[in-house]
Amino acid sequence: MRLPTELKPRPVPVPVPAPAAVAPVSATAPVSVSVSVSVSWERYFSRSAHAMVPSEVRSLFSVAARPGIVSLAGGMPDVSALPPDTMAGIVADVVREHGATALQYGSAQGDPGLRERICSVMALEGISARPEDVMVTVGSQQALDLLARVLLDPGDTVVAEGPTYVTALGTFKAAGARVVQVAMDRAGVVPDELAAAFRRLAAEGRPAKFFYTVPTFQNPTGATVPAGRRARILEVCRAAGVLVVEDNPYGLLHYDGEPTRALAADDPERVVYLGSFSKTLAPGLRVGWVHAPAALTAKLVLAAESAMLSHSALAQLTVDRYLRTQPWRERLADFRAGYRARRDAMLRALSASMPAGVSWTVPDGGFFIWLTLPEGMDSRELLPHALAAGVAFVPGTGFYADGRGARHLRLSFSYPPAERIDEGVRRLAAVITAHL
Amino acid sequence: MRLPTELKPRPVPVPVPAPAAVAPVSATAPVSVSVSVSVSWERYFSRSAHAMVPSEVRSLFSVAARPGIVSLAGGMPDVSALPPDTMAGIVADVVREHGATALQYGSAQGDPGLRERICSVMALEGISARPEDVMVTVGSQQALDLLARVLLDPGDTVVAEGPTYVTALGTFKAAGARVVQVAMDRAGVVPDELAAAFRRLAAEGRPAKFFYTVPTFQNPTGATVPAGRRARILEVCRAAGVLVVEDNPYGLLHYDGEPTRALAADDPERVVYLGSFSKTLAPGLRVGWVHAPAALTAKLVLAAESAMLSHSALAQLTVDRYLRTQPWRERLADFRAGYRARRDAMLRALSASMPAGVSWTVPDGGFFIWLTLPEGMDSRELLPHALAAGVAFVPGTGFYADGRGARHLRLSFSYPPAERIDEGVRRLAAVITAHL
Repeated sequence: MRLPTELKPRPVPVPVPAPAAVAPVSATAPVSVSVSVSVSWERYFSRSAHAMVPSEVRSLFSVAARPGIVSLAGGMPDVSALPPDTMAGIVADVVREHGATALQYGSAQGDPGLRERICSVMALEGISARPEDVMVTVGSQQALDLLARVLLDPGDTVVAEGPTYVTALGTFKAAGARVVQVAMDRAGVVPDELAAAFRRLAAEGRPAKFFYTVPTFQNPTGATVPAGRRARILEVCRAAGVLVVEDNPYGLLHYDGEPTRALAADDPERVVYLGSFSKTLAPGLRVGWVHAPAALTAKLVLAAESAMLSHSALAQLTVDRYLRTQPWRERLADFRAGYRARRDAMLRALSASMPAGVSWTVPDGGFFIWLTLPEGMDSRELLPHALAAGVAFVPGTGFYADGRGARHLRLSFSYPPAERIDEGVRRLAAVITAHL
Repeated sequence: MRLPTELKPRPVPVPVPAPAAVAPVSATAPVSVSVSVSVSWERYFSRSAHAMVPSEVRSLFSVAARPGIVSLAGGMPDVSALPPDTMAGIVADVVREHGATALQYGSAQGDPGLRERICSVMALEGISARPEDVMVTVGSQQALDLLARVLLDPGDTVVAEGPTYVTALGTFKAAGARVVQVAMDRAGVVPDELAAAFRRLAAEGRPAKFFYTVPTFQNPTGATVPAGRRARILEVCRAAGVLVVEDNPYGLLHYDGEPTRALAADDPERVVYLGSFSKTLAPGLRVGWVHAPAALTAKLVLAAESAMLSHSALAQLTVDRYLRTQPWRERLADFRAGYRARRDAMLRALSASMPAGVSWTVPDGGFFIWLTLPEGMDSRELLPHALAAGVAFVPGTGFYADGRGARHLRLSFSYPPAERIDEGVRRLAAVITAHL
């Protein structure tokens, strides 16, 4: 019910007792008759709250988690690959030896020791970083959220790959920004398309503020931008005066050769780099980071202070100790081998069971394969049948801001064991075949 | 330097190789000459980023942390009161026995088991809560931030106590809200002043959206609102159609008798309740919570998803296991005794050393004492002299949105041992006496 806002409070004499005179308040004795009037909350919501709606992708995850369903939907890492006793020993040592720090408030920028270690992780991708330019975040997601606060006003324009990471789309939209997505091919975003989009937006008087990109083992396509094209993308952004936000949670999960050189390695003044330990260690610690020029980092630290005061010192010191005491590079090699085996299992199953007219990408790292359905088929219509058949995926439309992507879907091979992946793909193939 | 945005990218033929044809990108070989052009970031900042400035209070904490200085400034809990081996054992068991959950992504609303335990904690203050109405947050600070996003549009008005918690002021201002502070006496906010403020704001056409209050052992005054006045405050807010945000991190740190009955216990439909384990367990876990009606909780969960996907499962399961396996009620009694002894040490030192004309509050719980200086004295002018004399405090102006509070200052007794508190107060008294 709506409350009568015009109703004025009745004037009532108010006793103002000094502390000594104050009757102790007992939690068990109600101080007034409990009021069960229900408040119409909607009228108090902000504009952005009214705009908040559950993401179709995240709603799907709860369904996908049902027993019997093979979930190729969520991109959860395989934390069973971590030795539990080792991790237990690390957190216990952190609390025992550094309890006064690990259990206390910390700085909003994050633990200085961890920020140094993070610089050595970024060095693997060619970035020469200074700890003072790093801020620790609650996963990369918080970095995206704080960047949106510090860089975006309602009505601003963000350019992203089409398709792109679903929750980044949601965060930019929540900030009131318009997201324009640029066409990709199998080698990532097409630089000339990007340049054309920047020109068009500038001509419209709504120039892009930044280009959000996942250039390595992209979510959702698995595409990686090759060296020459990276240089060209930076050139296009420089020429247009557009910033770059490089989101790189999968970069160290390459199946062959060397890690890919990050965009931030070649233009640290223009590229904001987002990293995460969620895929290379454990998402349950919620430790990611952002590397940015000093002026931006200073604003991000103020935004983080307002958002949460400081990140968990226990989680940060746990990651720090893991990096200091464990053979983490060797363990990364084990993770790569494990994910590569899962990718191969999915590729084998796709080749063995998918009908003609279905195609898919072949990622060189990361968690995802992007599948294209035969002309005229819609992955959203397919989904309920797939769930009924015991397999879940994410419809391609979730990765676009404008409803495109119906002919595509994302398959994740990061979490289920190989035999489940095989079973899941066969179930999906049967559903697709039945719809031909 | 400003970048030439009008400069169009030169048309260059772009090779679009298929993955097989893509040359592997080495992180060690630069793909383009590293560009050292410095970007003028300020031009990319959002309006709210331009408005972000370091809080005078938080800047002070780094100075206060210098060796030799007795800090009566920060409100850090005494985590040394926790048995380190017990805490180490708890986190180790969580990882060893529940690693698959503790190290993985969780839900944005928080661990269901912990949310049940949180309901039993709230029951101590008379609140009958359901786990589905609780959301776990990164400390109460994140709850304040998410509430600001879900309830406040730029230009909205928030009513708060004068003085009030400094970082809440910052968060509401960052959301573009105007904060109007209502006079308090030693028993908290004055209900008639509150009613008058609501009437005035409604008449101005800018009605208050919510009343932000710390009704128990308030930060910074230590004041607690007695039973009768609580009922009156709820009545005033109901009549004006204003929501209540009850921030209660100190409620279970009462030095005598029973816990104070929460405002939320008597009007759960109108009162949003914020709780925290930062003062009763450990801030390094960053576990707090918000209890709200279902409609608001649903929006807060969506906002949390956008802000960080999910909170640390390790931190949540650690708190859950602590509450399930430890005599936490008995330990709370020990914490109370410890803080009470510190309060008494500070009160003794104040009586022994402060000159005539200085007065202070006597809190029945929590961490803070609010000191009033003689007429004409300014705590901001006093601060550098106090730091030079080896003692830190927070000037009263930090707790007001409009520069008031110069005659007041906040003293915290939660962290230094009794003998340091005594020394710190004597140093401060000498500085004040020298300025008379």
